[in-house]
Amino acid sequence: MSDQNIFDNEIFFEEYRKLRNNPSAANDIVEKPALFSLCPELSGKAVLDLGCGYGENCREFSKLGASRVVGIDISEKMLDIAGKENKYKNVTFIRMSMSDLSLLQDAFDIVFSSLAIHYIENFDKLLADVYQLLEDNGTFVFSQEHPFTTAMLKEKPRWAKDSDGNILHYNLSDYSIPGVRKTSWFVDNVIKYHRSFSSIINSLSAAGFIIEKMLEPLPNEATMEKYPSYKKYYHKPDFLLIKARKNTV
Amino acid sequence: MSDQNIFDNEIFFEEYRKLRNNPSAANDIVEKPALFSLCPELSGKAVLDLGCGYGENCREFSKLGASRVVGIDISEKMLDIAGKENKYKNVTFIRMSMSDLSLLQDAFDIVFSSLAIHYIENFDKLLADVYQLLEDNGTFVFSQEHPFTTAMLKEKPRWAKDSDGNILHYNLSDYSIPGVRKTSWFVDNVIKYHRSFSSIINSLSAAGFIIEKMLEPLPNEATMEKYPSYKKYYHKPDFLLIKARKNTV
Repeated sequence: MSDQNIFDNEIFFEEYRKLRNNPSAANDIVEKPALFSLCPELSGKAVLDLGCGYGENCREFSKLGASRVVGIDISEKMLDIAGKENKYKNVTFIRMSMSDLSLLQDAFDIVFSSLAIHYIENFDKLLADVYQLLEDNGTFVFSQEHPFTTAMLKEKPRWAKDSDGNILHYNLSDYSIPGVRKTSWFVDNVIKYHRSFSSIINSLSAAGFIIEKMLEPLPNEATMEKYPSYKKYYHKPDFLLIKARKNTV
Repeated sequence: MSDQNIFDNEIFFEEYRKLRNNPSAANDIVEKPALFSLCPELSGKAVLDLGCGYGENCREFSKLGASRVVGIDISEKMLDIAGKENKYKNVTFIRMSMSDLSLLQDAFDIVFSSLAIHYIENFDKLLADVYQLLEDNGTFVFSQEHPFTTAMLKEKPRWAKDSDGNILHYNLSDYSIPGVRKTSWFVDNVIKYHRSFSSIINSLSAAGFIIEKMLEPLPNEATMEKYPSYKKYYHKPDFLLIKARKNTV
């Protein structure tokens, strides 16, 4: 388990829970609907959820007809919640790092991951493991923090604003320098990994995936009106989503 | 011919020629080597160059063994230079807009385009035409201005610098808003089109292309030392390059 287990940090865990319980959370309004829109028909399918967290997506997959759902997560605290709140028929939760996927002796039609991949150092190894776990023509659907978000090497104001507080632009730096990023998010030294668009695309292609669709989702206009702070998405999206198919030549 | 023919503007033409004749031009140092690195073996292949400009790449393709090379460009002035400087065996130059590709009754192994696609309004139509012109499993290799470069709706300082002139970050805005951009580059009202990464990827996928490789090239370290202004590429690359294969199922 070389990747950080930040979700078992007590302060991080509690603050993250508050964030996710906020009804205007970007995860619920922007990321989750977009990610589900990329999922193939789930009926009768075997689904693996990488970094399942609270397990609410696993439960949803089962409700939508998946025949078998496995959710893995590195965090004991997150899986405690999953077991209490999202136990459901056909759903199994396993405490396991995404770096240990090769331990799973199993096969899936769909591998899914919501906002976990930017915590993983070795993306190429993960892709090789996912390829191995997928059935022929299986689908890998994932979201991650947008490369514009992960880019910066040093923490600094992300947005330039005018004197009225209106956003002028996003302060982008270090985009072309891949690798580890230490950020303060609820606690110090949260470790994420930055990868450029080309690096992500080339890793997928080299691992044998065909990129079928990419999304950089925005909230819809009604949401923009209700929560004006989301207008910053016109300048810079927060999430990158990809649907890729296992290419079996 | 709905797309702008800015290269036949006299001032633009002369200033662009000066830029390209500069030995440290980013086109020559960064973009061109990267784009050629994406080209398949050229020996015996039929190649179409979209927006061939001075025609120097067409000449190179023929030298590298291409059996037949067609270069098209909308600009009479550019093709005048091409005819004078880069006439070569097996090379044909045609004055034609990239929007009129369907007039070509021909087939190619490789369609190539260097820094022209951001001048084209209808990318989906272009892709449909390129797909039609390619042989089975043919390759489309192109470069364009990086989406970070085309993003901004209004012209403004692109870089934030400290009091010593060191670059702090790139001022990114309007990335999520696709469409026309009027910029001043040598002359006013140069028209380009902004497309996000996801928009480009999805158009390619929907048109029947498999994305094999993407590059956002940087100069090598020796070049960075020789021309320190290129260090800005660590924050933001200038070019986006894609190699895609016609998928014939």
